[in-house]
Amino acid sequence: MPTPTSPPARIAARMSDIAPFHVMELLARAQALEAAGRDIVHMEVGEPDFPTPEPIVEAAARYVAAGRVPYTPALGIPALRAAIATFYRERYLVDVAPERIVITAGASGALLLALGVLTNPGDEFLLADPGYPCNRHFVRTFEGVPRPIRVDAACNFQPTAAHWEAAWTPRTRGLILSSPSNPTGSLIDRNDLIDLISAIEMRAGTLISDEIYHGLTYATSASSALEFTPDAFVVNSFSKYFGMTGWRLGWLVVPEAYLRAVEKLAQNLFICASAPAQYGALAAFAPSTLDMLEARRETLATQRDVLLPALRDLGFEVRAEPQGAFYIYADCSRLATDSATLCHDLLDQAGVAVTPGVDFGEFEPASHLRFSYVANVSRLQEGVRRMRQYFAARA
Amino acid sequence: MPTPTSPPARIAARMSDIAPFHVMELLARAQALEAAGRDIVHMEVGEPDFPTPEPIVEAAARYVAAGRVPYTPALGIPALRAAIATFYRERYLVDVAPERIVITAGASGALLLALGVLTNPGDEFLLADPGYPCNRHFVRTFEGVPRPIRVDAACNFQPTAAHWEAAWTPRTRGLILSSPSNPTGSLIDRNDLIDLISAIEMRAGTLISDEIYHGLTYATSASSALEFTPDAFVVNSFSKYFGMTGWRLGWLVVPEAYLRAVEKLAQNLFICASAPAQYGALAAFAPSTLDMLEARRETLATQRDVLLPALRDLGFEVRAEPQGAFYIYADCSRLATDSATLCHDLLDQAGVAVTPGVDFGEFEPASHLRFSYVANVSRLQEGVRRMRQYFAARA
Repeated sequence: MPTPTSPPARIAARMSDIAPFHVMELLARAQALEAAGRDIVHMEVGEPDFPTPEPIVEAAARYVAAGRVPYTPALGIPALRAAIATFYRERYLVDVAPERIVITAGASGALLLALGVLTNPGDEFLLADPGYPCNRHFVRTFEGVPRPIRVDAACNFQPTAAHWEAAWTPRTRGLILSSPSNPTGSLIDRNDLIDLISAIEMRAGTLISDEIYHGLTYATSASSALEFTPDAFVVNSFSKYFGMTGWRLGWLVVPEAYLRAVEKLAQNLFICASAPAQYGALAAFAPSTLDMLEARRETLATQRDVLLPALRDLGFEVRAEPQGAFYIYADCSRLATDSATLCHDLLDQAGVAVTPGVDFGEFEPASHLRFSYVANVSRLQEGVRRMRQYFAARA
Repeated sequence: MPTPTSPPARIAARMSDIAPFHVMELLARAQALEAAGRDIVHMEVGEPDFPTPEPIVEAAARYVAAGRVPYTPALGIPALRAAIATFYRERYLVDVAPERIVITAGASGALLLALGVLTNPGDEFLLADPGYPCNRHFVRTFEGVPRPIRVDAACNFQPTAAHWEAAWTPRTRGLILSSPSNPTGSLIDRNDLIDLISAIEMRAGTLISDEIYHGLTYATSASSALEFTPDAFVVNSFSKYFGMTGWRLGWLVVPEAYLRAVEKLAQNLFICASAPAQYGALAAFAPSTLDMLEARRETLATQRDVLLPALRDLGFEVRAEPQGAFYIYADCSRLATDSATLCHDLLDQAGVAVTPGVDFGEFEPASHLRFSYVANVSRLQEGVRRMRQYFAARA
């Protein structure tokens, strides 16, 4: 018979380098407060506050109502891969063969495939700090070594060719770029991107370009790495711009020479991405859907234009103008000594949920917060009012 | 500027140990023949030929029509975790805390989480050969070492405590059990399972029990490892029994001591499983749905009872009675010298698609084929008729 008491866990070493999302604990606390009747203004959220566009919902519903919902090909349904290729041609004026476009379970699935075929144990990937924390954990998952690059307002919170050169070692395998960036909303400049790609390719490295916030840019637009090289892995998603977070659908553009490896890995690790999501996404590129998405983008721009000056007025410092995504990365050192404590107090005492800097890296997390501006203008204003009251009472 | 010609690929070493599905190439060929007007009998398929049950489709459609489709908690929606716990109580008479049930993107997501938290580089996992090929590739993905155990009709194609003892080394971390098995349809005997669990736990190893074909058993039923130990990782899926393949939804039952690690990994690697699939699956356990699934199980039993004697009559040898899943693993050595060639010829000359043994391991693949009996009785009979004609013409 099995032993009556459970043995101690033998947890793989990688797990001690993989951090939880602190915002999740904050979110759980926010939900507990709401369950107890408190009203909470949510500025911690990482997804747009819009429903999935109706044409997408309807296309998915039609598909599942029609009968069987079988596996799709591992790389995705051909019609969707072709639709994305057309989107690249129309929006970026760049030709990408549909065969190079792989449909995945969100950007998460795309990063698993890219890093799975690229990373040998000990291989190093450079990433911006502050940056999206999962990216370094994907590297660690495959026994690679994430190397943070400290970025700040001087470089618009984006890595540059000079960073690459300074950080490069013979173990450096590549760089993960996120533009627009989470948490800073910053974009890499077009010429800086060209220089960065050159520098990486001169060292036979590989660029992974995370473009999941493309489309959500204000008074500017983001360049795709695909405009300048066929040798980058480009990660994108239907989550943010297309409003499909909960459906879990994204894509990976794969350099020709890696396609066979990516296909093998996708067959084995995933079988395929969600079929209803794939058929729904066929409606994502219809002109009527894109019009709707553009209107939403303008709404987000308005929300940004409300929150950004209000935060500065409260005493937060925002050093680089956020130009994309829906985040503002704010320095709180004039207002508090520790951002995690401030987040805790803002939630408990002011009823405002914000994400602490600790979720985004090791570079000055204690003096930073991430505000999300997906809530509507009146909720954002209510959040600002509450924070003003909180800081005034404390003064 | 980037270099004008692409550099050679630098593909991670793991990819040379990760094999493609050969059946995929066969499937592509079958589809090409169909596109050219040929009629093909499909006996290579790895999914039931039923639509998703209507109550599931309706529950998913209601959910997405109601508005936003946001991320769910990383471990899944609480109502679904609770419904699965109730299912364990009712069907297996075993208490599993809902907190230990993690919702995943298919069994694939569950295996990624289980092996991600268990596997250090060099750790060995034992697996049955023949067996489902992805399982060994999941181990390799995390730099673990898959160790095939040669199983045959004498042990009903299932690993035993004696196998574990004989194969164990200080690097052995655990064993992946699949019962019912793909490709053999065999089940581990209840007492053999108890002995195997004891043997593994005596060595402080961990059992991963792949139970994705549970519910699809004929004139018998499968035991869950959860009936005998709280310390196994149990992988299950809504794909096969519940008819939700294309939705990509499964679950993992996690030993208490590993829960926090699994949650961290799920947050980072997946964010969450498909929300529409999760809300759809809430209808999977309704009595009316379960009645429908039982009727389908009986249909599969009938199809097995048609195909199994017919294959034997054709000259295939089936040494262990398949009791579950929807596969028959047949020895073709009296009919052909190489199963891959036979598969190729059956497709081209007889219009019958079958999976070659090479997809299931290194133990006598050339003398085995896997037949799937998800097609209806008249199609199965047509397939048999064509094979009889083919073998007669060749004789």
